[in-house]
Amino acid sequence: MQVNREQIFVGVDGGGTKCRARLFSSADLVLGTGLGGPANPYHGKEQAQASILRAVEMAMADAGLNAGIEDLIVGAGLAGVNLPSVFQSMSEWKHPFKKMYLTTDLHIACLGAHLSDEGAVLVAGTGSCGYSYVNGKALMVGGHGFPCGDQGSGAWMGLAAVRAVLLAHDGLGMQTSLSDYIERHLGAGGEMIVDKLGAAKSNDFAEFAQFVFEAAEHGDEIATHILREGAEYLSDVADKLWQTNPGRMSLIGGLSERIMPWLKTSVTAHLSKPISQPEFGAVYFAKQRYSLES
Amino acid sequence: MQVNREQIFVGVDGGGTKCRARLFSSADLVLGTGLGGPANPYHGKEQAQASILRAVEMAMADAGLNAGIEDLIVGAGLAGVNLPSVFQSMSEWKHPFKKMYLTTDLHIACLGAHLSDEGAVLVAGTGSCGYSYVNGKALMVGGHGFPCGDQGSGAWMGLAAVRAVLLAHDGLGMQTSLSDYIERHLGAGGEMIVDKLGAAKSNDFAEFAQFVFEAAEHGDEIATHILREGAEYLSDVADKLWQTNPGRMSLIGGLSERIMPWLKTSVTAHLSKPISQPEFGAVYFAKQRYSLES
Repeated sequence: MQVNREQIFVGVDGGGTKCRARLFSSADLVLGTGLGGPANPYHGKEQAQASILRAVEMAMADAGLNAGIEDLIVGAGLAGVNLPSVFQSMSEWKHPFKKMYLTTDLHIACLGAHLSDEGAVLVAGTGSCGYSYVNGKALMVGGHGFPCGDQGSGAWMGLAAVRAVLLAHDGLGMQTSLSDYIERHLGAGGEMIVDKLGAAKSNDFAEFAQFVFEAAEHGDEIATHILREGAEYLSDVADKLWQTNPGRMSLIGGLSERIMPWLKTSVTAHLSKPISQPEFGAVYFAKQRYSLES
Repeated sequence: MQVNREQIFVGVDGGGTKCRARLFSSADLVLGTGLGGPANPYHGKEQAQASILRAVEMAMADAGLNAGIEDLIVGAGLAGVNLPSVFQSMSEWKHPFKKMYLTTDLHIACLGAHLSDEGAVLVAGTGSCGYSYVNGKALMVGGHGFPCGDQGSGAWMGLAAVRAVLLAHDGLGMQTSLSDYIERHLGAGGEMIVDKLGAAKSNDFAEFAQFVFEAAEHGDEIATHILREGAEYLSDVADKLWQTNPGRMSLIGGLSERIMPWLKTSVTAHLSKPISQPEFGAVYFAKQRYSLES
């Protein structure tokens, strides 16, 4: 028995395409980082578990630890576990850690952004979503995924761009410089775009979001219209979140900087910079839960 | 050698989900019908060939023929062969028939609808598309598939309905009776809709089109808006097709009857009833090509 070994905490942020694990000392210093594959247990519990293990092992190696996985206390925020059946099933995992505390990816993002039990996040990346956590109650607004929801997200912008380019190609919609951007990116134009996008997923469509911003910034009407519509939706989501009185709200995700100027000023005026990363939010969550048990 | 055996022609209509074959006597009487699986060679050449063979063999059995596949002259109109590489690859098939003449599913639909070398079809079913064939030249308008194109189609209507229902659920859009229809159909409401639609394809979304019509016919504003937008697109496609002077135009596909009253009157005033089925168009095509070779 090693009485002097310092307790190490791990924060895991697991999404549909990848999973990141960070090891923290009890003084909150980052000791190591690791990456794993998809970790949304709704799309595959075994895959999610394998991705988490891989990310944690890589983070341990990065930190120079080659033993002691059974001593780790893990906080894991995963996509998909907002569905009760998925949460239940993932909770039953016979993991190798000392403890694992499970919550949603949105919850740890929110905890990380505010380092407080309460707050709200507006997410604009490949997907989009609003989330607030107030008085022990979580509220999720939007976030229904591609192609049914996620308005204002990169994937949504990309699909809107492709639709507009195809309409222009058929002579049924306004010409747009998005045609040139997408043709250059795909090496194909007109109806051959769809040929290239045969198996495209949300992240493939999200690659076009950068072109929508560029085109709009150069005055393209169609691109401007797409951004206005997306930003209006995101502003509406932010208004919904404010109604829960979260105290603080942050805009996070890969598109946050570029979409910011398109949001309503009444929304942007009240946004706060995120304080920390989701992995740290996961550790914040784990420490709280662990201290309640000790 | 059998000198007196009557030449039998087969019309094959192959799409992304199924394939239909019809045997015709030289006097154009239907002798038998058969069904096969997916026959879009873009999604799988071997599968398409297997589906065609299965449909033809079933049609032969239906006609009471149990030998002579090597005597058949086949006209096949397939989805996907509008792409030159797919056409080329499918043409190289070492099929067991006497002859096989290959063209697109749209071309045989158009030939069937008009029993003439020239004409146009506006397709509104699971997908949507415009097609005209005039002076030996084919023009395709739209038809880029789900979710990038196919505005006004069943799949497009279904996606628009789901989006509207989710917006209403989040309090970000107008309430709509589509919520009740879809909840009843899926046995799930709110964010659980997306759970049910995890692996949904275009034909799953197209199942909701009936609800959009029903809701609109009962005055639902959202459903009415979806139908107006879809019908406006289809009317625009029809206008484009008329510019090629096709002589006749028909509205075909599973939604044709219900969408008809929503189209511009200047469009509907010039629509003609389709004369025959795509399989017969395929035989019409095969006979023409065969007579040129004889």
